[in-house]
Amino acid sequence: MSNPVLVEVTRGSLVESRHRGMVIAVDGEGRVVFSAGAVDAPVFPRSACKAMQALPLVESGAADRYGFGNRELAIACASHSGEDDHAALAASMLARAGLDEEALECGAHWSFDQGPLIHQARTLARPSALHNNCSGKHAGFVCAACHTGMTVAGYVTYEHPLQAEIRAIMADLTGAVLAHDNCGTDGCSIPTYAVPLDGLARGFGRMLTGSGLQPLRARAATRLIEACMAEPFYVAGTRRFCTLLMEVAPGRIFAKTGAEGVYCALLPEQGISIAVKCEDGASRAAESMVAAALARFFEPGSEPRERLLAMANHTMKNWNGIEVGTVRAAPSLFEAA
Amino acid sequence: MSNPVLVEVTRGSLVESRHRGMVIAVDGEGRVVFSAGAVDAPVFPRSACKAMQALPLVESGAADRYGFGNRELAIACASHSGEDDHAALAASMLARAGLDEEALECGAHWSFDQGPLIHQARTLARPSALHNNCSGKHAGFVCAACHTGMTVAGYVTYEHPLQAEIRAIMADLTGAVLAHDNCGTDGCSIPTYAVPLDGLARGFGRMLTGSGLQPLRARAATRLIEACMAEPFYVAGTRRFCTLLMEVAPGRIFAKTGAEGVYCALLPEQGISIAVKCEDGASRAAESMVAAALARFFEPGSEPRERLLAMANHTMKNWNGIEVGTVRAAPSLFEAA
Repeated sequence: MSNPVLVEVTRGSLVESRHRGMVIAVDGEGRVVFSAGAVDAPVFPRSACKAMQALPLVESGAADRYGFGNRELAIACASHSGEDDHAALAASMLARAGLDEEALECGAHWSFDQGPLIHQARTLARPSALHNNCSGKHAGFVCAACHTGMTVAGYVTYEHPLQAEIRAIMADLTGAVLAHDNCGTDGCSIPTYAVPLDGLARGFGRMLTGSGLQPLRARAATRLIEACMAEPFYVAGTRRFCTLLMEVAPGRIFAKTGAEGVYCALLPEQGISIAVKCEDGASRAAESMVAAALARFFEPGSEPRERLLAMANHTMKNWNGIEVGTVRAAPSLFEAA
Repeated sequence: MSNPVLVEVTRGSLVESRHRGMVIAVDGEGRVVFSAGAVDAPVFPRSACKAMQALPLVESGAADRYGFGNRELAIACASHSGEDDHAALAASMLARAGLDEEALECGAHWSFDQGPLIHQARTLARPSALHNNCSGKHAGFVCAACHTGMTVAGYVTYEHPLQAEIRAIMADLTGAVLAHDNCGTDGCSIPTYAVPLDGLARGFGRMLTGSGLQPLRARAATRLIEACMAEPFYVAGTRRFCTLLMEVAPGRIFAKTGAEGVYCALLPEQGISIAVKCEDGASRAAESMVAAALARFFEPGSEPRERLLAMANHTMKNWNGIEVGTVRAAPSLFEAA
């Protein structure tokens, strides 16, 4: 069975491209509020689950020991654009543990974003691991390992005790079995596990509500989610969609993207958790889908809803500023039945 | 009815993302050799039809008057990366007509490609219209308009006689009716017309074989196709897929991409014309599809076939050089039934 078309890209009066996908929203008890597509299919959450992967940093006491505030916790959950402030913050986290970028095992890459890349090209001979979009997550890994007395080297491997701990946490949160057969390697070299999209939504829902979690984990989850909402620039960057989503209604929306068209989002007031996967992996479509799904839960006519709908359904302009088409989400995503 | 999945992106042992699409190959008489998906659906060819749009430049005699060789004709059909040699060649074409970049109406943008963008960032305050990926096509338009005594200003508009001429040419080649209701505006501001994918394939097939074309048009078409195959760098750029495809078997493959997952390709020896549209607009999938479809027409075990298959089915590495997954084309594309 095909997943439904959830986003259309138009040009003139015609549809030029179509994106299929899966979207699920669950409430505080994990009940499905709405869904589209095969939401029981396994999906690699990729970077969308970074807040889950950051739990050991907080639960272990490492974050407190090193004096990490909202910015450090936010960048530990981030896929940032490699802007100067991102790289500097990751470096400062490592310095608190007496280490430097040599400890990072994520590899280096130029920014994926045009503005930051142009700035990097003009100021750097080449990017370092601190500019890797995952450098904050990795700095958090290094600090968690350091604090708990684990050998830091090799912290990215499946066998390392930190990854084993993350595996256990994600299995607990999502209800999925995580093992070699559903494990892949992520862009930054750590294991990534395919879990059903509905399990991913329920896992984030449990981070939000604390339902069924030990108090230590529930508190750590709340702290990470609140840190991201308080410092959205450090979760992504200038003009990035995660940052913009969280700026729509400060403290009322958590959102985190993952590569290949994944999004996880939370609405703390309503206790709602949303997970999205665009079948073809396109970011532009996952962005439209998650903005539309978030809009569904705000009052008609309210400013957050209007701003989210404007992010879900927007015009595209060409190099001369002429409107050439639109990206538009299926109304079924944002209009409650 | 859904288009079939033609490209899968895997991670670990699982499929992470799926791309659907349409592919058609026709022979010298326009008969379907093979197809997949709804190939009668209208598709905006975007930049994939630039060789059609360049016909007036040659047919009018402008190319001869201004002394244009293979490089100039290739860049007139190009979506280039804005490398220094591309911008310089476009400027030199305009200079032959006594004009400069002020005549270009395509707008300016930074290179879409990381390497050239980094170079631009280090050497330019900002890009000019000469760096626009379409600057060669637009320089060709300007020269064609100049030579034939048309007013140059406004050459991008639907009403301009040059665009009317291109509209008539594309209608003739593809057999489609082109008018306002299937017209959109392209990234570079000229009209783009949605035509059935099979019509697009047959249109390029007629450019290749000359079938049913007036001798002047047939000769112009041959000259443009041969120019692109002779100068593949000027059709795209360093490490670009169009360039690499044409370098696989010099003089034996023509290939040109268009935005939103379109590809047109020709095999002069076999008289085959191929057109591809990835439903979701992804370049990585359109590339895999067209390489696979081209491979189908080369002998098993031959070097072109092996190289094309390696482009259609390839591993993906992460920032540490670790293999994390694959992009793979449906075997039905490259294995004859």
